[in-house]
Amino acid sequence: MDSEQLREYGHRLIDFIADYYKTIESFPVLSQVQPGYLHKLLPDIAPDHPETMDQVLDDVRAKILPGVTHWQSPSFFAYYPANSSVAGFLGDMLSAGLGIMGFSWITSPAATELEMIVLDWLAKLLNLPDQFLSKGNGGGVIQGSTSEAILVVLIAARNKVLRNVGQNALEKLVVYSSDQTHSAFQKTCQIVGIHPENCRVLETDASTNYALRPGLLQEAVSQDLEAGLIPFFLCATVGTTSSAAIDPLAELGKIANSNDMWFHVDAAYAGSACICPEYRQYIDGVETTDSFSMSAHKWFLTNFDCSLLWVKDQDSLTEALSTNPEYLKNKASQANLVVDFKDWQIPLGRSFRSLKLWMVLRLYGSEALKNYIRNHIKLAKDFEQLVSEDPNFEIVTPRIFSLVCFRLVPAKNDEKKCNNQNRKLQDAVNSSGKLFISHTALSGKIVLRCAIGAPLTEEKHVKEAWNVIQDEASFLLHK
Amino acid sequence: MDSEQLREYGHRLIDFIADYYKTIESFPVLSQVQPGYLHKLLPDIAPDHPETMDQVLDDVRAKILPGVTHWQSPSFFAYYPANSSVAGFLGDMLSAGLGIMGFSWITSPAATELEMIVLDWLAKLLNLPDQFLSKGNGGGVIQGSTSEAILVVLIAARNKVLRNVGQNALEKLVVYSSDQTHSAFQKTCQIVGIHPENCRVLETDASTNYALRPGLLQEAVSQDLEAGLIPFFLCATVGTTSSAAIDPLAELGKIANSNDMWFHVDAAYAGSACICPEYRQYIDGVETTDSFSMSAHKWFLTNFDCSLLWVKDQDSLTEALSTNPEYLKNKASQANLVVDFKDWQIPLGRSFRSLKLWMVLRLYGSEALKNYIRNHIKLAKDFEQLVSEDPNFEIVTPRIFSLVCFRLVPAKNDEKKCNNQNRKLQDAVNSSGKLFISHTALSGKIVLRCAIGAPLTEEKHVKEAWNVIQDEASFLLHK
Repeated sequence: MDSEQLREYGHRLIDFIADYYKTIESFPVLSQVQPGYLHKLLPDIAPDHPETMDQVLDDVRAKILPGVTHWQSPSFFAYYPANSSVAGFLGDMLSAGLGIMGFSWITSPAATELEMIVLDWLAKLLNLPDQFLSKGNGGGVIQGSTSEAILVVLIAARNKVLRNVGQNALEKLVVYSSDQTHSAFQKTCQIVGIHPENCRVLETDASTNYALRPGLLQEAVSQDLEAGLIPFFLCATVGTTSSAAIDPLAELGKIANSNDMWFHVDAAYAGSACICPEYRQYIDGVETTDSFSMSAHKWFLTNFDCSLLWVKDQDSLTEALSTNPEYLKNKASQANLVVDFKDWQIPLGRSFRSLKLWMVLRLYGSEALKNYIRNHIKLAKDFEQLVSEDPNFEIVTPRIFSLVCFRLVPAKNDEKKCNNQNRKLQDAVNSSGKLFISHTALSGKIVLRCAIGAPLTEEKHVKEAWNVIQDEASFLLHK
Repeated sequence: MDSEQLREYGHRLIDFIADYYKTIESFPVLSQVQPGYLHKLLPDIAPDHPETMDQVLDDVRAKILPGVTHWQSPSFFAYYPANSSVAGFLGDMLSAGLGIMGFSWITSPAATELEMIVLDWLAKLLNLPDQFLSKGNGGGVIQGSTSEAILVVLIAARNKVLRNVGQNALEKLVVYSSDQTHSAFQKTCQIVGIHPENCRVLETDASTNYALRPGLLQEAVSQDLEAGLIPFFLCATVGTTSSAAIDPLAELGKIANSNDMWFHVDAAYAGSACICPEYRQYIDGVETTDSFSMSAHKWFLTNFDCSLLWVKDQDSLTEALSTNPEYLKNKASQANLVVDFKDWQIPLGRSFRSLKLWMVLRLYGSEALKNYIRNHIKLAKDFEQLVSEDPNFEIVTPRIFSLVCFRLVPAKNDEKKCNNQNRKLQDAVNSSGKLFISHTALSGKIVLRCAIGAPLTEEKHVKEAWNVIQDEASFLLHK
């Protein structure tokens, strides 16, 4: 770690990255390489002797970049966004530069304290109930991903209920979600040992725009209680991955609360929009929840990984996740004067991730962040309008945020053929390299997803995307 | 994401970080702030409007740095190191710059393929058995931390055995480790639902230098079998956190293999040393294991997070951790042509972490990396020599790698007073700000730990550290 070498190479890499963004539109958005391409280009063993920065950067250009799918391209409309921004990038860089571990307060007090402060800042921007603030028994914490956020609260909830009913009751515990809940939830249940047959996946349909129906939940809970099972966890979503569906938190919360269930809300994508007063309504009812998560690394300009989790009762987390070996003991922790975030998460190690969120909030300010979100939603509205004007296409579910779910309409009610055509259209569009869209299935229909949210996306990119989609569609339809 | 703003701010931050390393010795190694210090310095709410880069950098200098414990300081000797290096930093920066998600092959083929290639490179440097290479059914993967590495193999092992004996046998499963195994293992067992009374924590003592005794394991396994329980997982360690103890892999492996138990080896810290032929012997027997992990972010110049995990049977991982929702389906995955690392880990999201390991291996080369390790071990040997020459001190366990476990010797066999004095010595040394050491307990003795491994540490820092320790000790002893 030579400071002058860091300076020299660092400056060169900054220019490399800045140039990458300048030319990002020249790459195919979806990488067009074939499986195994890189094995053919790189040696089988590590070099014995140092290579130069030039050699490495040449290889990045010639061998790595062709295998990159450009998530930061303005024409990336697949999945949900994974924002990188100048401020988010700088924060990540500073964190890597300082190279500290913030698992206990003592190992870098600033890391723990800044995290508590910025999570409070964001809780206030989202107008979360006071119980989620760090001043009481609640608080926020940065997790690596929504999967980890859900995993830690599921463990906390599991241990809490097992403390009451006995360790051997694990096989009686029942969780509830909808068939639109992210697959991470199912995986998480599997990890903590919930029996697969005790995972209630409640069906949704177009009648509620794929939102979970409270009546269905109540019914399932009642049946499980009658069968002697123990309903203990409900996972609702604001902005599902498939179609950005919004589960009705207030009504669901009533059921969860009256049955002593832990209620978690996953707002990984749409949570960011809720800092705008006009979208805050979609998390109304959050006061009934036990925990709430959103991913700042999705649509909030903060580089991965930065998933935010708030809980009302930090004790339930730390009771489930604390370790206290001699080699980590220190006066501040032993005297209970501080928060040690190692006891709020799965791993021990943790980097200074709050720096990037802090820099995003300071270098942009909350007003600009609201306008950033509003602009993407406006662009999505424009795209929705373009789709709805074309008789070959239909909007499948009403657009609320920046995701448009659409498809080619079936000819002669042939849904099977229609699904195939939509798949073909997706392939054709993505193979063009001009944009990247993904798909999902809703009630058996293959649906195309245009998720707007890359920082560089402007009106012209959305229009160009639609032109490519229309062109490929008309080629397909007239073939 | 304006490329010219990134360029301008990026250059400024590079200089800031380079200057930080230039002046790193001017900071107290262990932060000397009091709990809650930062809340008094920062506002309660996020700013509405943008602030300038100058304001932010001024705050980093004035408010953040005083709360930082300087893990990259040449006088940081606590815990184990968390290496940052020019190459590791550049790799992290490039990954943040590209801002891609590599959860499925298709989402950035280069991310998956480079990871497979560099994990093969490192497996070869470690001379791991061929079954750990990616060409067969084995392979390596980057996890965030050792905790996650152990968690995924524990889930894989649990599911494998439950598939044979039935889901309801969870309460019969037994795991084995020593009382020196990292607390992460206990936490992991708790997460996956292993009954606490089924976690065998086998006692170690000075007679084996705190290594797990195979005889004790055999005895415990036999007893559990007789009691109708199911021994299914053994976690051994090469280089424990307390004292760098080395469990005898070959003998333990025999017992694990003959009882059909999953055998994992955690070499988080000492694994790095095993790239040197003269230290490779300490993982002899690795051929009997099912999985092996080491953390490149500890002592291998690769910035956090970069924990390497190799398994012989990738199917057991993917059978336990795969999800396949419609919105992630793609031709390459469906045709089974590619590896999707999302199915080898807990979270869905994953960044391009192999870049930093690749840059470390290329910009330094394996010969320099071996010498880097050897130099730290030599410095530790020097420190050990200094300690052993002072009659007030003793070496508590034989030093093998770069950790020296030592303490003030008890006066008149008063072990209790001796423990207090060692604690006081540690406090005095760390409060000086001149260096940072940590402690542990071995057979009830409080032991001081000097772990050498920061990239900037030179002979003079080790000598200075010893001078401070001696000075503080003589002040204590003559008070």
